[in-house]
Amino acid sequence: MSGGTPRKPRLRELGVSIGRFPVGQHNAITDVDGVRVNHVTLVEGSGKLVPGVGPVRTGVTAVMPAHGDPFLDRVFAASYVLNGAGEVTGLSQIEEWGLCETPILLCSTLCVGRVADSTVAWLSQQHPMIGQEYDVVIPVVAECDDSYMNDAVGRHVTPADVAEALDGVRAGPVEEGCVGAGTGMQTFHFAGGIGTSSRIIDLAGVSYTVGSLVLSNFGVRDLLRIDGVPIGRMIADRFAHVPQRAPAGSIIVLVATDVPMTHRQLGRLSRRAALAIGRTGGYAAHNSGEIILSWSTANRIPRLSEHGRHVVELILDTTIDPLYEATVDVVEEAILNAICAGVDMVGHSGHRAPALPSDLVAELLRRHRIPHASDPGRSHGGSAQ
Amino acid sequence: MSGGTPRKPRLRELGVSIGRFPVGQHNAITDVDGVRVNHVTLVEGSGKLVPGVGPVRTGVTAVMPAHGDPFLDRVFAASYVLNGAGEVTGLSQIEEWGLCETPILLCSTLCVGRVADSTVAWLSQQHPMIGQEYDVVIPVVAECDDSYMNDAVGRHVTPADVAEALDGVRAGPVEEGCVGAGTGMQTFHFAGGIGTSSRIIDLAGVSYTVGSLVLSNFGVRDLLRIDGVPIGRMIADRFAHVPQRAPAGSIIVLVATDVPMTHRQLGRLSRRAALAIGRTGGYAAHNSGEIILSWSTANRIPRLSEHGRHVVELILDTTIDPLYEATVDVVEEAILNAICAGVDMVGHSGHRAPALPSDLVAELLRRHRIPHASDPGRSHGGSAQ
Amino acid sequence: MSGGTPRKPRLRELGVSIGRFPVGQHNAITDVDGVRVNHVTLVEGSGKLVPGVGPVRTGVTAVMPAHGDPFLDRVFAASYVLNGAGEVTGLSQIEEWGLCETPILLCSTLCVGRVADSTVAWLSQQHPMIGQEYDVVIPVVAECDDSYMNDAVGRHVTPADVAEALDGVRAGPVEEGCVGAGTGMQTFHFAGGIGTSSRIIDLAGVSYTVGSLVLSNFGVRDLLRIDGVPIGRMIADRFAHVPQRAPAGSIIVLVATDVPMTHRQLGRLSRRAALAIGRTGGYAAHNSGEIILSWSTANRIPRLSEHGRHVVELILDTTIDPLYEATVDVVEEAILNAICAGVDMVGHSGHRAPALPSDLVAELLRRHRIPHASDPGRSHGGSAQ
Amino acid sequence: MSGGTPRKPRLRELGVSIGRFPVGQHNAITDVDGVRVNHVTLVEGSGKLVPGVGPVRTGVTAVMPAHGDPFLDRVFAASYVLNGAGEVTGLSQIEEWGLCETPILLCSTLCVGRVADSTVAWLSQQHPMIGQEYDVVIPVVAECDDSYMNDAVGRHVTPADVAEALDGVRAGPVEEGCVGAGTGMQTFHFAGGIGTSSRIIDLAGVSYTVGSLVLSNFGVRDLLRIDGVPIGRMIADRFAHVPQRAPAGSIIVLVATDVPMTHRQLGRLSRRAALAIGRTGGYAAHNSGEIILSWSTANRIPRLSEHGRHVVELILDTTIDPLYEATVDVVEEAILNAICAGVDMVGHSGHRAPALPSDLVAELLRRHRIPHASDPGRSHGGSAQ
Repeated sequence: MSGGTPRKPRLRELGVSIGRFPVGQHNAITDVDGVRVNHVTLVEGSGKLVPGVGPVRTGVTAVMPAHGDPFLDRVFAASYVLNGAGEVTGLSQIEEWGLCETPILLCSTLCVGRVADSTVAWLSQQHPMIGQEYDVVIPVVAECDDSYMNDAVGRHVTPADVAEALDGVRAGPVEEGCVGAGTGMQTFHFAGGIGTSSRIIDLAGVSYTVGSLVLSNFGVRDLLRIDGVPIGRMIADRFAHVPQRAPAGSIIVLVATDVPMTHRQLGRLSRRAALAIGRTGGYAAHNSGEIILSWSTANRIPRLSEHGRHVVELILDTTIDPLYEATVDVVEEAILNAICAGVDMVGHSGHRAPALPSDLVAELLRRHRIPHASDPGRSHGGSAQ
Repeated sequence: MSGGTPRKPRLRELGVSIGRFPVGQHNAITDVDGVRVNHVTLVEGSGKLVPGVGPVRTGVTAVMPAHGDPFLDRVFAASYVLNGAGEVTGLSQIEEWGLCETPILLCSTLCVGRVADSTVAWLSQQHPMIGQEYDVVIPVVAECDDSYMNDAVGRHVTPADVAEALDGVRAGPVEEGCVGAGTGMQTFHFAGGIGTSSRIIDLAGVSYTVGSLVLSNFGVRDLLRIDGVPIGRMIADRFAHVPQRAPAGSIIVLVATDVPMTHRQLGRLSRRAALAIGRTGGYAAHNSGEIILSWSTANRIPRLSEHGRHVVELILDTTIDPLYEATVDVVEEAILNAICAGVDMVGHSGHRAPALPSDLVAELLRRHRIPHASDPGRSHGGSAQ
Repeated sequence: MSGGTPRKPRLRELGVSIGRFPVGQHNAITDVDGVRVNHVTLVEGSGKLVPGVGPVRTGVTAVMPAHGDPFLDRVFAASYVLNGAGEVTGLSQIEEWGLCETPILLCSTLCVGRVADSTVAWLSQQHPMIGQEYDVVIPVVAECDDSYMNDAVGRHVTPADVAEALDGVRAGPVEEGCVGAGTGMQTFHFAGGIGTSSRIIDLAGVSYTVGSLVLSNFGVRDLLRIDGVPIGRMIADRFAHVPQRAPAGSIIVLVATDVPMTHRQLGRLSRRAALAIGRTGGYAAHNSGEIILSWSTANRIPRLSEHGRHVVELILDTTIDPLYEATVDVVEEAILNAICAGVDMVGHSGHRAPALPSDLVAELLRRHRIPHASDPGRSHGGSAQ
Repeated sequence: MSGGTPRKPRLRELGVSIGRFPVGQHNAITDVDGVRVNHVTLVEGSGKLVPGVGPVRTGVTAVMPAHGDPFLDRVFAASYVLNGAGEVTGLSQIEEWGLCETPILLCSTLCVGRVADSTVAWLSQQHPMIGQEYDVVIPVVAECDDSYMNDAVGRHVTPADVAEALDGVRAGPVEEGCVGAGTGMQTFHFAGGIGTSSRIIDLAGVSYTVGSLVLSNFGVRDLLRIDGVPIGRMIADRFAHVPQRAPAGSIIVLVATDVPMTHRQLGRLSRRAALAIGRTGGYAAHNSGEIILSWSTANRIPRLSEHGRHVVELILDTTIDPLYEATVDVVEEAILNAICAGVDMVGHSGHRAPALPSDLVAELLRRHRIPHASDPGRSHGGSAQ
């Protein structure tokens, strides 16, 4: 999707910070050391929907939750289901064992089975122990529905696409907007499904990072707020002529951190992350699956261990409030980055998702938003990557 | 607390609406037909804290969830625990049976046992069947901690206070701010614990009401937002000299509606209500118990029935989105009303909770907030009670 | 698997009833009117495991939860996760909407993605609305791990197998033991994965049916109890020479009823169903995914409705105890039927799961079990199908 | 209640073991080092019920979960609500923080408020920090309903009784049956509410203890099973003339262990503990509150810490199965011990709860139960205390 199109400005490039904490090097989930991301974007054809044929506006996004191999060295994880009208496979096991042991795949709703199957194939190749006497794996695959733009029934993601996504995961900057699983998605009726952000916080004298990546596909244009400013209703008139889909959608929120936390603590973090959806103007519509998955890269639980016990260092809950505050901020900014990065998309049957008009929005924010000490250009607090 | 003090303006009297839906007659939870409220406010003494003696800055608030007697005619109910660092007695039973069968009492944390015991006494007097062969009752008592202002260890609420609160429940306007259980509480470091609001919505051609009452005791001054405007940090400097308590607290959110809903649907509603806490600037601090309790007055389940089945009319989930949107709005406004109504409070040991400076805030909102068609004075949509 | 092999006696044919309630016509989940089942069984090859090739000891089982098309007329449903070390796709949505809207597929752990994808294909063919502007579907696929016997990595279930299973669902008797998804499974180290049973109960003057079907793959031989008698340790010595897999496994429990119940009530039912696992000698081992899914066929919720409300008749909780009692019984008997029906199985690499020695067990039960008035041959209570 | 009455034989004194693991020194929850228990038993008056006056058949039981002061050094804890038709105050906080920080009090349903208030008073005296600037406490009080025997409305437990119960907690043997909170309770329609048991297990080369104490008040006589033998229906005829209460009741199950476990792991343990209720013949009747609370004494979390992190050693889930198996056993035996210890009780209005006829039951068990290598007298495995 990026091709020759110049990248659109991220939220911070519009002069806007969310909250008081500085961002990490790339202002991305990959700022949490070890987290790696890759997108495979599929755009083909145009015109009327021919189910099973096209047009194609979809993709797959792979997130490796930590350094090394999470299948062999699992990470603590937990979730919160704000609205279960969606799917994250493997969630029962994550909640039971408190662990994530596979990469996380994001895709179109109807592709979940296919992507899960492809991930089993990929993992089985790497780990011959799978399928041998009681070692199996349940991959984590999460979805939003891109059928407004994409031939969803065609399930165009192939095993090769999934393998390519997984093989290519990398640290560093993360592409946003209409890429990977977010290709055919829209947020508050603006094009763009993938967004990310990060924060640096200090807990009890130690510096930690928390990052988020969202697959965002929710919201009603009128209700969009950017750092509290009701941008949605300020600009909605300009889009009155664009037919828009029903006020539904979904959002998958991933939160990664290197703060050493247990499953219980990560569940608490997940419940806070959901507050960000409300801040941007969401109310979790009936049909909008809104699921948060959080993990910590700090303590790894080996799959095969000679020991029956393990020693972990954990953060005390009494120390944790800055992390909670930063997590709401970082998810809010990840959602807004998804919108900022989106480009005009035309899907099947003339369905359109317009790009957020960045210049106009920047101007409105300059006029109406109360500046903050942590805004880019105003402080040393955040590197506007 | 009200005495000779003139009532402070509510949020709508500052010219501000939250969201697009009109409010009910009193813009209060009592706009849901049958819901009744009463406060007993206890303010005595001043000076240094003498545990068990005073000063007293506390009270009790009683909420009758529906017409008639909920013990005999139960209402469907459900909860959501955003942060369980608090207490609502009877919650296990509400979640299991999907019913609320007692009045709801709000009070100081350390008074929960005493208020529960007093409520059992009050209910037993009314219902001789209680305590006879297998009919007992578990009252619903919820709390926030007022120990920053109040001699909490003294547990100054008496059985007579509880009976007075319960006997006096009534429809109509509801006192807000530093009254009842909210007497010694503060919200974003401003005085005021009780707030309420209501909305009128249309679902599938029928007009319904949703109302909220909060016992609010959470938030950090800097983070307060009013309809998105970061009022907290705009005025924080003026209060820099006032020592403030730790960034903790709690909030109990009650949501009542006459929309016919099951337990499952009311659980969904409760999870949406929590989003409002984020909109005002909360992030659910570790030590802040944040619990939502929702109920519907529409279908009553008799305690004693000759029938083994009952017929209920229920709203379809596919119709429900306006209720979700309105619920986030109504809770947001209830929280803000609690702050607007608070008056300067001095507790024990010189601890202070300042009132929100209404005139200044109104001026800042006029200058910086984007007006909304539903604002009082701009539309027919809301009666600024 | 049945082929020329004579069917082994079911538990009641050994003279044993579980509990006091009569069974339905077929003593099967299909006694709940509208519920239909079909198995596709795949057995090919023998010898050492060649991952991706064979031997094959697996299959797929399809359960249609009610009359007609559950996609268009959904049924109320709920789940309980006793141990989440397993997977049921679609569970988040079932818990959120309180509805099941797809057939339920059972299969091998590593086949979940493939079977889900195949079910999407099957449903999309039947319902062109899927994949068109906001109508998608998340199928319900549940698993146990058959990798001790089966080339699990080979994922030998094809889209055609899934379609065949779904197309062939039917009422009437249900094959048990080493069939369908249960082909390569074992229960208390005896061959057999599929079992079923039913009960007829009277609630407030109306006769209802509750039925269960299990995909059972859990238990340690020593601990097996049949109606309380510790048959496991009485006969374990005879199997001391058979190498056995690790004490893990899993069980998926399906419970269907025509009692009119909400999601909340079905969740309660699911928690009771889990007690049966304990009665047979299970303790829910760490690695044993134990998930219960319950539904009621009594009130259908249309996918497309012109109305915003619906009227339902519901059972009162105060009437429900016989259903709870019968549900524990029926799940217990379904598990035991899975064991009774199992035949000697040889999987890959010489792995074996022996059949329960029915004659010996019958003799031990005759000698040591306390007869019950509801036993077959002793009362009019149960037709020992 | 003990007075001059000779103690009735415990289950093991009838020659019966439950499961394969050896018991601790006292076969009691106090075998978990640091756990202490005390009962205050209140029996006064006889004759017809005069609400508020008598007769009195109640009491209070205090359990100190660990060495030292759990308010200052909290223990990891978690719960499972099998049936929420009951109350455990403080449960929201236990689930949120994963900690228990107060003694656990057991009492009559209508006394919960009074006992909670008395516990706040007792704790406040010991800890002057309570009620000072943000340190409050929510005590853990659990109940069953003794109103079939006791003047429950009278709420006869006083603050002095609660203080006496708390001040007197001690290690060593624990009285069972009709004592403390269990005074007016019955289990499977036999007198007796308090029972306890313990097991010694080996996990990864280290010896640990798990103990249970139940406040048991559930079950239908006909359904009672002792180690699988349906003793209930074998002896029910002998009690056909005794009017019995409705088939309801409740049970509170406490499980303590020195295995180092997190909140998540203790939640898993709690779900297994519930299986024991099914094994004894329970099915969790609608009106029967069945709640499990588990904790580990192994890692203490200080209330006041200078550090923001803590280091804990934890058991790996892959090592934990023997603990799961032993936990089901130990709860089963605790319930059966409650029945074994009960003495004939006459409550108000001639209501009666008969004692289990120990000699007859022992004889029936000798005749019909399959002996086990771990039975007392048969092996070195358990000291039949």
